[in-house]
Amino acid sequence: MRVLAKDIAQACRDRPGETLEVYGWVHRIRELGGVTFIILRDRSGMLQLLLSEAEKVDISGLTLESVIQVRGVPTLNEKAPGGVELRVHTLEYSARSAPDLPYQVNADIGKIGLEAVLDHRALSLRNPKIRAIFKVQSTIIEAFSRYLRGQDFTEIKTSKLVGGGTEGGAELFEVAYFDKKMYLAQSPQIYKQIMVASGLERVFEVAPAYRAEKHDTPRHLNEYVSLDVEMAFIASEKDLIALEKGLLSHIFSEVARKNAEELALWKAQVPDAQAVERAPIIPYEEALSIANGVSASGKKPGPRIFDINPEAERLLCEWALQEKGTDLVFVNEFPRRYRPFYTYPLDATRTMSFDALFRGLEITTGGRRQHDYKALLEVLPKFGLKEETIAGYRAFQYGCPPHGGFAVGCERLTQKILGLSNIKEASLFPRDRKRIAP
Amino acid sequence: MRVLAKDIAQACRDRPGETLEVYGWVHRIRELGGVTFIILRDRSGMLQLLLSEAEKVDISGLTLESVIQVRGVPTLNEKAPGGVELRVHTLEYSARSAPDLPYQVNADIGKIGLEAVLDHRALSLRNPKIRAIFKVQSTIIEAFSRYLRGQDFTEIKTSKLVGGGTEGGAELFEVAYFDKKMYLAQSPQIYKQIMVASGLERVFEVAPAYRAEKHDTPRHLNEYVSLDVEMAFIASEKDLIALEKGLLSHIFSEVARKNAEELALWKAQVPDAQAVERAPIIPYEEALSIANGVSASGKKPGPRIFDINPEAERLLCEWALQEKGTDLVFVNEFPRRYRPFYTYPLDATRTMSFDALFRGLEITTGGRRQHDYKALLEVLPKFGLKEETIAGYRAFQYGCPPHGGFAVGCERLTQKILGLSNIKEASLFPRDRKRIAP
Repeated sequence: MRVLAKDIAQACRDRPGETLEVYGWVHRIRELGGVTFIILRDRSGMLQLLLSEAEKVDISGLTLESVIQVRGVPTLNEKAPGGVELRVHTLEYSARSAPDLPYQVNADIGKIGLEAVLDHRALSLRNPKIRAIFKVQSTIIEAFSRYLRGQDFTEIKTSKLVGGGTEGGAELFEVAYFDKKMYLAQSPQIYKQIMVASGLERVFEVAPAYRAEKHDTPRHLNEYVSLDVEMAFIASEKDLIALEKGLLSHIFSEVARKNAEELALWKAQVPDAQAVERAPIIPYEEALSIANGVSASGKKPGPRIFDINPEAERLLCEWALQEKGTDLVFVNEFPRRYRPFYTYPLDATRTMSFDALFRGLEITTGGRRQHDYKALLEVLPKFGLKEETIAGYRAFQYGCPPHGGFAVGCERLTQKILGLSNIKEASLFPRDRKRIAP
Repeated sequence: MRVLAKDIAQACRDRPGETLEVYGWVHRIRELGGVTFIILRDRSGMLQLLLSEAEKVDISGLTLESVIQVRGVPTLNEKAPGGVELRVHTLEYSARSAPDLPYQVNADIGKIGLEAVLDHRALSLRNPKIRAIFKVQSTIIEAFSRYLRGQDFTEIKTSKLVGGGTEGGAELFEVAYFDKKMYLAQSPQIYKQIMVASGLERVFEVAPAYRAEKHDTPRHLNEYVSLDVEMAFIASEKDLIALEKGLLSHIFSEVARKNAEELALWKAQVPDAQAVERAPIIPYEEALSIANGVSASGKKPGPRIFDINPEAERLLCEWALQEKGTDLVFVNEFPRRYRPFYTYPLDATRTMSFDALFRGLEITTGGRRQHDYKALLEVLPKFGLKEETIAGYRAFQYGCPPHGGFAVGCERLTQKILGLSNIKEASLFPRDRKRIAP
């Protein structure tokens, strides 16, 4: 019966002298005067194995990263990692690793370089620090889903193959769909709105989303995981901000609870509930003034900022940390021209929309939507759109409640929680203009 | 403060005489001697509203499926649905529904027809029986994820844009990816295997999968939600079958617990844990004999069956229900020629593979995989494949443990739990050769 590395010390205390079986990868080999020490790594952690010459276990040709199954008796040893080691009686190879590893898993991962990390995911994830990223991401997805289910949201799965983009058709990947042209969905926008109108009222979706944007930056992916939310019977974007605050608080507290080790590896911390609650909500024009104010007062004043661009996002978060003691800022009331046609108006020039900025990066865009079909038709010409291109919205003629929603970029949230310098580090198999494999 | 329909009776008992607010859709209107009865529908259920002439609430032009917000006082009334009704003082329109509904939501949904149901999802889901399908599906996804997390599996999200199919490249949708050709992934097969090799050992993914198959049948979708599982350190497919039994048991018990109302609407039942445990595991050749035996002994003997085709799946399930009292059958040891190149051999002709059949339909394909890279290379010529086409598997050279996995088709499981005649009913926005909208 297999025992995980993390449970060996306890097993040794509970059943001293009993022979146990452990499986895993050879993380490190060290020879010391007739004794070989192997650090074995499994999904739970590391364990020191001790092979003495007396036992006559054949380890000729043993390579790093080979997968082995060993049987032996654990003994408590204060000097061993985790306070326990296993004296090996038998050793079998599940898989012998080729000796020409592209890089050493047990080395400082910072020295390996991003391309090598991404090229060899089966190796790079064996490094505990790299693996930590995806343990945190798994928690984010779980916490997102669980919080919303607790608020009576229904999980939906909608098609990623669409006839065109709801925002007008730019930056879409084309799919040859039998004898037709289709496109990869940029977001489940219209589908989640239809689901609100269908009477589900509150829905969420976790699914890939696609942007055929040519830029290659540390904050963009051409394929990403979108954490989407949409809910009925809201009055304004402020109801959505309140929901997102609760949601992010829950995600942060779950990451803190389940991933303390992973956070420690990255020297990272998550905001507590009070810090999230303190997050200011700043109207767009005021946010622009603040960003320009911070920029002007800096050691090296930057050029004047005319919209909430990445530099403004960074400056606003700098300001919020200093003035409000929080990593999170909401900017609302974006001007009409910056938002899609379906955004609900606040007045002639402003909309009931918002962005969430976290540690210098926009992680969410959202807002109240126009639920009245006639009003939607009226704004179309301003956006150069025709009724045919928004055919899906015809469903709104048959009773669509006031509603709105938002999306959280899963990789962006992961990146900012851990302080990763490039978003690609937060995607197992990222896609950019050049990277199409593995 | 809004109160949901399902909570009105309790609110009436707790705080009699208090004015409450309810929001929802106008499901039915009935006039009876100066009094108008409206059945209001919200995400939680139905509530009877009572509008007397004395109150002077203007309901001129009130249309079915309009969204309204009303205030009034609830009174217990044994004759009203749910034992309570709300005497309306004020009524506001959130959205007036156009009077030309494509069909009536409160009608027998069976008469509407599949095409109309799919064309108008915002309407069809308002019918409680149709909505039930997706409440059950939401529970399936939640239960799948939660069970596997409980077994120490990590949730992963992998790219759906791949360079080619792992099974050889047929039946793929092509994507114009900048200046390159890519394809929509048929399954996360190689990625979940790489994640096992990465030391995560146990992974699962919930994501769309694509098959460019031209057939249009009640059991096929061109885009579906694949519930994928992969785990390390298994000896054979029997370990996977044991896992799937536990997983399905959990899913069924969660659906029974959370969706009793939804199951009742479809007159459906889920198997209990004992029935799942009783599911037989039948080697391929024996399964073929059984299917032919059932076929021959029927009232109208069919032609001889030469492989486990849809008819054989149906017959095997018929047999299992009669002989073993279970809706679930596992067929294992499929011949080499029917399985992909990466399937682990049992002997010269058979493989460590299996299918799960549930109520006449294959819902799962899985098996142990070849984890030795050299052995993989050796079988390639038999499948007409070259080393370049399986480049991703090179990762296996660096220590890949014995492993295997399976995938459950989410829509198929939903279909068979509820007894839906067509799988498209279990997809919110299904895609087939002709259906590309909404």
